[in-house]
Amino acid sequence: MGKSILDYETVELRDEENAIRIIDQTLLPGETKLIDLKTGKEFWNAIYLLQVRGAPAIGVFAGFALYLLVKEAPLPLPDTKENYSENFNVLKAVLQEQKEYLNSSRPTAVNLSWALERMEGKFLSFESEEGRTIADVRSSLKTEAMTIKAEDIEVSTRIGEYGLTLVKKGDGLLTHCNAGQLATIKYGTATAPMYLGFQRGYDFRIYCDETRPLLQGARLTAYELASAGMDVTLECDNMSASLMKTGAVNAVFVGCDRVAANGDAANKIGTSLLALAAQHYHVPFYVCAPTSTIDRNLKSGSEIPIEQRKPEEVTEMWYAKRMAPEGIRVYNPAFDVTDHDLITGIVTEYGIARAPYTASLGEIFARREANPLCVTPRA
Amino acid sequence: MGKSILDYETVELRDEENAIRIIDQTLLPGETKLIDLKTGKEFWNAIYLLQVRGAPAIGVFAGFALYLLVKEAPLPLPDTKENYSENFNVLKAVLQEQKEYLNSSRPTAVNLSWALERMEGKFLSFESEEGRTIADVRSSLKTEAMTIKAEDIEVSTRIGEYGLTLVKKGDGLLTHCNAGQLATIKYGTATAPMYLGFQRGYDFRIYCDETRPLLQGARLTAYELASAGMDVTLECDNMSASLMKTGAVNAVFVGCDRVAANGDAANKIGTSLLALAAQHYHVPFYVCAPTSTIDRNLKSGSEIPIEQRKPEEVTEMWYAKRMAPEGIRVYNPAFDVTDHDLITGIVTEYGIARAPYTASLGEIFARREANPLCVTPRA
Repeated sequence: MGKSILDYETVELRDEENAIRIIDQTLLPGETKLIDLKTGKEFWNAIYLLQVRGAPAIGVFAGFALYLLVKEAPLPLPDTKENYSENFNVLKAVLQEQKEYLNSSRPTAVNLSWALERMEGKFLSFESEEGRTIADVRSSLKTEAMTIKAEDIEVSTRIGEYGLTLVKKGDGLLTHCNAGQLATIKYGTATAPMYLGFQRGYDFRIYCDETRPLLQGARLTAYELASAGMDVTLECDNMSASLMKTGAVNAVFVGCDRVAANGDAANKIGTSLLALAAQHYHVPFYVCAPTSTIDRNLKSGSEIPIEQRKPEEVTEMWYAKRMAPEGIRVYNPAFDVTDHDLITGIVTEYGIARAPYTASLGEIFARREANPLCVTPRA
Repeated sequence: MGKSILDYETVELRDEENAIRIIDQTLLPGETKLIDLKTGKEFWNAIYLLQVRGAPAIGVFAGFALYLLVKEAPLPLPDTKENYSENFNVLKAVLQEQKEYLNSSRPTAVNLSWALERMEGKFLSFESEEGRTIADVRSSLKTEAMTIKAEDIEVSTRIGEYGLTLVKKGDGLLTHCNAGQLATIKYGTATAPMYLGFQRGYDFRIYCDETRPLLQGARLTAYELASAGMDVTLECDNMSASLMKTGAVNAVFVGCDRVAANGDAANKIGTSLLALAAQHYHVPFYVCAPTSTIDRNLKSGSEIPIEQRKPEEVTEMWYAKRMAPEGIRVYNPAFDVTDHDLITGIVTEYGIARAPYTASLGEIFARREANPLCVTPRA
């Protein structure tokens, strides 16, 4: 399998080469290929084609992409303090055009637009500044993008540390879909306790659901955890009850897309079924959730809209030939909502929330307010 | 989709043509092709290659196959009463050789060896008879094979009738794997209430689990029910909790491989997980079990051995390219055991057993003893 996933970061800025380096996730698990992307079209394609995927990773990627496009845009005049305002206005048009363009690559990805807005905000904060050069602005954009990245690594690391307090050496840990390093920059969310524990000799047995219909568990999670050298077993989604009955699973860790104020958690389809199996077999079920995914404006999970995806994902995709009769109707929701009473704990970068969640998530946010993330950006 | 599955029987004897006609199940769901099989090698291949599959269908097929092979075997002498004994002994060697041969096509299929033994027993009952011709013996073998078939249709029909008492018009019914007509001769077991109800205007909404890793639900069940004109929706196995939460499912019907005395039921992997979802959402969960699958020598499901199947079924099979990293370990049990306390009722051809199952299954067997199946064979 070659190098460990831990030898990489999912998204890397190669500033001297004006490039972003990523693992091309469309080639996984068959081939681990690093690609360097340089043009706006390449950046757009990488997001659109899912060469880079996972909300946090896309956010970081978009930050770097916008930085490089602004960095490379030609200035009408030499970069002096005298020409600042004219140069700035030209660059502003470039930035806004590229921001719109990149954002169109995956319009529903919240982190994509969030990161682009944040970069634009940083840029615009220099609009009325005096005595600056464009080099200052560009340098500041780079720092902002690297801060987004460093924050993501910090969030994953903290979730990993909190998660690690919930398990012991030799445990069997089950996960669903890919809330792994490939979806973030480092360690992932649901996988962060696995990576940190692995590095400290915890000797876990890891189980991955293949995660129909898009097979992120088989293609991505099994790949990345096995590449790091962990003891990984793949199973079909319908095997979790059978597996838990054997006693092999000591805890379940999953990621999430959105968490409501009451602790209901939307995550990849199949998560709530897995939670039912965990409850029946008395296996603790943990949702790993950066506070950015917790939306306390939603009272409960019933307010989270669930997208229905196209039938072909179930009937044709991946297959050598079609595997269901022509014209068959297909139920294919992207997510399901796991009721808070099936969740043992919600692991955030500010600690672990437990029932009753409305109160405990409130405490998590109070901690975040009192002690916002403060990280040192790194390349 | 062409003709309805109900226009066919899964296995049909074409006596005048010395052939067995089946739907080639390896071509489903893409192509509905009837094939006529005539030679021992073709019969063997049909079972081995899964052109015919499902325990009851294989049993009937094997009965017809052995009948035709004995029918066509040349006799050393003219078929007179005087030559009976010599002719019989030659035929006996043929029958026993072909029986061994056919049985080797799928050694673990219990119904295969059961049907072959039954045919041999019928044949041997003529061994010491006087005043017979070989034509009599052959005719009797044909009747025996047709009786096996008629009994299977009777079992499915009765399970369908009993099952139908458990549902009402307009219900949403969910099934897993293929316990359908394609696995039997007519109506299937788990699908029998669906077919009978459909013919009587019950207007069901049917949901099929695709059933990883072998996809029998997508390839076979969705195909056969849709071909009959039913309202069928396919889903991935991990979507059942999400679906039940919407209220769309009023009852679950599944088949089974073996039922223990206490009601624990082994069936295709994923069944026990589905039963947990049904329990959580208060959806009745019914196991359709011909009494031939109930083994009261087994105290509980823990005595049922669970076969582990090869990893490639999960990582490679059906796919255009491999979908999991090379060398990944795979958990791939063929079956799981659903605990009796998750089962609302066990539907047999002698009525519906309910908890406590040790007692109610005892009553079912008493009824069978008192009133064994008595059917008129048909072609």
